[in-house]
Amino acid sequence: MLVSPSFADDGATVAYPDGFRSWSHVKSGVIGPQHKSFSSVGGIHHVYANREAMAGYRTQQFPEGSVIVFEWLEWAEKDGAILEGPRRQVDVMVRDSQRFATTGGWGFQRFVKDTRDLASEPTPQQCFACHDKLKEDGLVLSKYRE
Amino acid sequence: MLVSPSFADDGATVAYPDGFRSWSHVKSGVIGPQHKSFSSVGGIHHVYANREAMAGYRTQQFPEGSVIVFEWLEWAEKDGAILEGPRRQVDVMVRDSQRFATTGGWGFQRFVKDTRDLASEPTPQQCFACHDKLKEDGLVLSKYRE
Repeated sequence: MLVSPSFADDGATVAYPDGFRSWSHVKSGVIGPQHKSFSSVGGIHHVYANREAMAGYRTQQFPEGSVIVFEWLEWAEKDGAILEGPRRQVDVMVRDSQRFATTGGWGFQRFVKDTRDLASEPTPQQCFACHDKLKEDGLVLSKYRE
Repeated sequence: MLVSPSFADDGATVAYPDGFRSWSHVKSGVIGPQHKSFSSVGGIHHVYANREAMAGYRTQQFPEGSVIVFEWLEWAEKDGAILEGPRRQVDVMVRDSQRFATTGGWGFQRFVKDTRDLASEPTPQQCFACHDKLKEDGLVLSKYRE
């Protein structure tokens, strides 16, 4: 499921979000054992935003340069406490109206585990297909939790 | 269980950690239904650190001015997804060797829900009783997750 780092349908690639762990934490959630997608994405996930994206969360109008990271950690449990397991993948969306005009002005990319290897699935077009339903929220699913 | 804002056994109070949601996110965990303490603290919790404390996590030697926040959110669930519920409490530890000399150089305080009301329990001495067992880690329980 890995592809060349030069992967991009239209030449536009999304860079790895260096340092995202020190960005603002937007919110978190957990996919538990009772969830239909537990086998593929069970575990804790976190959403992080850079400074530009944090400004965007105030109005759901995201300025150029906004980067939002969705970090997926595997399920781990001990005595009823759910812990952060190994990193499963890192999903990134980057706001650049020009470069990513064909996907609503956002570039999308998934990185594999703790690496900078690009995942071939979902494709930017697959990401866009769902995010495009969120027009009123600037194509962003999450809301900032004060 | 609320006490006057002037509460302090020795006159030393810990200030509310304004803006902690924009500090660095250290790690998260969840107390699930199978955990023995679910009824009292079930839900997602997050640890945040200010700049001084982030420097401390590299060596577990925390400089003066370090502030670490432990935010507790209530349990919420929908179709097997565990969500962030309302804020239950905000626990704070502040590094000031002089002011908090009697509790290992750390001041401890719990704030109630979304307010700045001080909780009477646990007392700083009760917090310290357990944290004092973590001498090798600078009295801090968490480790930073890169």
